[in-house]
Amino acid sequence: MRASSTSLRSKDLLGIETLIPEEIALILDTAEGFKEVSERHVKKVPALRGQLVINLFMEASTRTRVSFEIAEKRLSADTLNFSSSGSSVEKGETLIDTADNLVAMQPNMIVMRHKHPGSARMLAERYPNISIINGGDGSHEHPTQALLDAFTMRERLGRLNGVNVTIVGDIKYSRVVRSNIHLLTKMNANVTLAAPPTLMPVEIDKLGVRVVHSLDEAIEGADVVMMLRIQLERQGKLSFPSLREYYNTFGLTRERLRRAKKGVLVMHPGPMNRGVEIASDVADDPNYSVILEQVTNGVAVRMAVLYLLGGAHSTES
Amino acid sequence: MRASSTSLRSKDLLGIETLIPEEIALILDTAEGFKEVSERHVKKVPALRGQLVINLFMEASTRTRVSFEIAEKRLSADTLNFSSSGSSVEKGETLIDTADNLVAMQPNMIVMRHKHPGSARMLAERYPNISIINGGDGSHEHPTQALLDAFTMRERLGRLNGVNVTIVGDIKYSRVVRSNIHLLTKMNANVTLAAPPTLMPVEIDKLGVRVVHSLDEAIEGADVVMMLRIQLERQGKLSFPSLREYYNTFGLTRERLRRAKKGVLVMHPGPMNRGVEIASDVADDPNYSVILEQVTNGVAVRMAVLYLLGGAHSTES
Amino acid sequence: MRASSTSLRSKDLLGIETLIPEEIALILDTAEGFKEVSERHVKKVPALRGQLVINLFMEASTRTRVSFEIAEKRLSADTLNFSSSGSSVEKGETLIDTADNLVAMQPNMIVMRHKHPGSARMLAERYPNISIINGGDGSHEHPTQALLDAFTMRERLGRLNGVNVTIVGDIKYSRVVRSNIHLLTKMNANVTLAAPPTLMPVEIDKLGVRVVHSLDEAIEGADVVMMLRIQLERQGKLSFPSLREYYNTFGLTRERLRRAKKGVLVMHPGPMNRGVEIASDVADDPNYSVILEQVTNGVAVRMAVLYLLGGAHSTES
Repeated sequence: MRASSTSLRSKDLLGIETLIPEEIALILDTAEGFKEVSERHVKKVPALRGQLVINLFMEASTRTRVSFEIAEKRLSADTLNFSSSGSSVEKGETLIDTADNLVAMQPNMIVMRHKHPGSARMLAERYPNISIINGGDGSHEHPTQALLDAFTMRERLGRLNGVNVTIVGDIKYSRVVRSNIHLLTKMNANVTLAAPPTLMPVEIDKLGVRVVHSLDEAIEGADVVMMLRIQLERQGKLSFPSLREYYNTFGLTRERLRRAKKGVLVMHPGPMNRGVEIASDVADDPNYSVILEQVTNGVAVRMAVLYLLGGAHSTES
Repeated sequence: MRASSTSLRSKDLLGIETLIPEEIALILDTAEGFKEVSERHVKKVPALRGQLVINLFMEASTRTRVSFEIAEKRLSADTLNFSSSGSSVEKGETLIDTADNLVAMQPNMIVMRHKHPGSARMLAERYPNISIINGGDGSHEHPTQALLDAFTMRERLGRLNGVNVTIVGDIKYSRVVRSNIHLLTKMNANVTLAAPPTLMPVEIDKLGVRVVHSLDEAIEGADVVMMLRIQLERQGKLSFPSLREYYNTFGLTRERLRRAKKGVLVMHPGPMNRGVEIASDVADDPNYSVILEQVTNGVAVRMAVLYLLGGAHSTES
Repeated sequence: MRASSTSLRSKDLLGIETLIPEEIALILDTAEGFKEVSERHVKKVPALRGQLVINLFMEASTRTRVSFEIAEKRLSADTLNFSSSGSSVEKGETLIDTADNLVAMQPNMIVMRHKHPGSARMLAERYPNISIINGGDGSHEHPTQALLDAFTMRERLGRLNGVNVTIVGDIKYSRVVRSNIHLLTKMNANVTLAAPPTLMPVEIDKLGVRVVHSLDEAIEGADVVMMLRIQLERQGKLSFPSLREYYNTFGLTRERLRRAKKGVLVMHPGPMNRGVEIASDVADDPNYSVILEQVTNGVAVRMAVLYLLGGAHSTES
């Protein structure tokens, strides 16, 4: 699995679906080196000095934007944050006009979050000289989240090959799960999905995953249990009777975790709804939970992606 | 035209009206050198290292604030963004108290946008040791916009002297047009204005420009057609019957452009109202439109202004 | 008084209450050196290069956040601003979950403002490897404000020992006054408080201060008169009949200042309510007012605190 490429084939990171296993391994290997940088007192390398990265976030975000911004600064890039509030977007400008203007100012890379699936690809095709990094496009992909999840599993378990990963919850609206399924199946992990029928897309099993509708069955024998956020703000209305009912059926509790393998890892992309998809004591239990390690590893993985895309063009300078 | 000064006479850039032609030429010549910096892979020079520039934007802005912030970072300045939202301004503090406090923190320069004409001059007079750059003061001046427009014309046409520039639209409420008239007449370009009577200030012809009321007449023989944004949000109500009617009378279409000279340049300060003041196909046609080049050149021109003002005091250090 | 320590005992600055006089003197002495940095044309030293400081502001702030951000940049730290708006906090995430996530990204220091007294201490205890600087926790403490006030007094008067300091106004809801009382009594200054009965906490005299209810009596013989902001937005309703009545009874006017010592200093932490707690002509009179000097000194004091906390761990790197 660690026989990796020495560079990425594309100028962009739009999703996991188009990566080959060697590229995934390259990103994870590169991130290992960068993880060490953040553990120093002086947390900075000059890799992207003088490059400009624009963080174009058209949806609210905590972790992802902050994580990218920190990754950029640790690589010595200049950063510019652009969000939809307080900008011409409020005067009715389109995404394309906004992006055309930002690109005319000649950034090296754009990290982008937008509610429309495919928006990152649209920009990547429009701007041949700019690297686009997808920071989440609607319910489509969120590749750096899947990469940091994989980094965390690989670091803790020593491998991805053959690992049993159970993903539970809002499968239907989650971009996180889509990117994770692509990554884990490419790396020969075994993926099991569990969700209420209203949150499970039809024909998802064609992606090479096992679908079950009971949490207990899903957890049985798992090396990793990844709980997804119930995106209360994303759904027009709840797809299940009540939050209490959801917790009783699909909430992860200490008792339910007993069916997993010894040493099972509990993951969550955050932000968590404590007492909805996960019990607070499970989320905070250092014997299971690697939720904050995921956040730490997110910076390292994003540094790796920025470095590999930003460095790929450095011979032009 | 290129016999330029070696420095600016003022510590501030408040408007074009008070510049002499040699200063305008100096800024444009300096910007030529900086344009090349943004085209490199490593887009940074150490010119303003350790200087602090505060971007004090009391009105929403996309292009201008972002363009200044990028220009500052490419000169290695430290930048601080201060906008009216989330600040003591919401607690009722006056502009003067806000500015006094920011100045007490000893920045080198302040870039300022404010709705009141003359606000930049007020600050410039109040703070003898700080360079103030006017980023737009109400409907008064927006000097860096006129400078980037002139840079674009000069780069494309090789000169400003004798160039026929037609400016169309919301002449009355536009700070862009006022700065452009000052600059273009100083540099011996020929300026023609066209607008509906309700959007044309009285006695504007005393500024040495030709005023016409028909778009076709205005375009005849033009080297440059600059379309202004209809500032829908700025007017209490529309000064003309409807947006459709406006487009039919003063909207720039491919057909109307035929009256201009061959190789005519179409410009717009952005953000555009497509289908109101300009047809989408004209805005996007690389044979005419230099709208995104204007944005690119804006960074170079702002770098030049920051450099000339920031360096002018560097013997004090 | 200037016999100072060579380092701070704690990794955090949570309040003045837990500092010893030698630590206060160390911070003030260190700030003297940093004040000179801000007066240069190149306002930057490499002291915290590669360190990440997160400014976690969960309440609106002008001076404090901007002052910290400038201090951080002048020390060459990387800065990241995190406020509650536009973040997962709006999705209902708790302070602890937010902070856990930010800390997982491995900053060196967090500057924090929050409405809950004790919130900074809670974070300081939770994160043994991160320095927490309290930028104001409800009505509890605001230590850097008291330090910049003391710096200003010491610089102007040559000492703190034996200085008569009168603090007037909203004693009850002010974190500024609490930190100032701790600092001034530790440094052997004489503190007199004056306020309407509804804004004076009971038993405050146990802190070693003199309490009076008449402004004239309070000003008699003062070296320093510090006016506090009436926090109109903080109180459910006014604790006194009207703003006019407040001004007539407790507003600082030129006439009332005649009872103070010659050369009395007028201070205010800002933002001021002109015509409520202080007359405009007093606030702006350079013979009395050091209000903007306080702002200038705030940057130097915050640089000193960041440097002393950030450098204290530098042997780990």
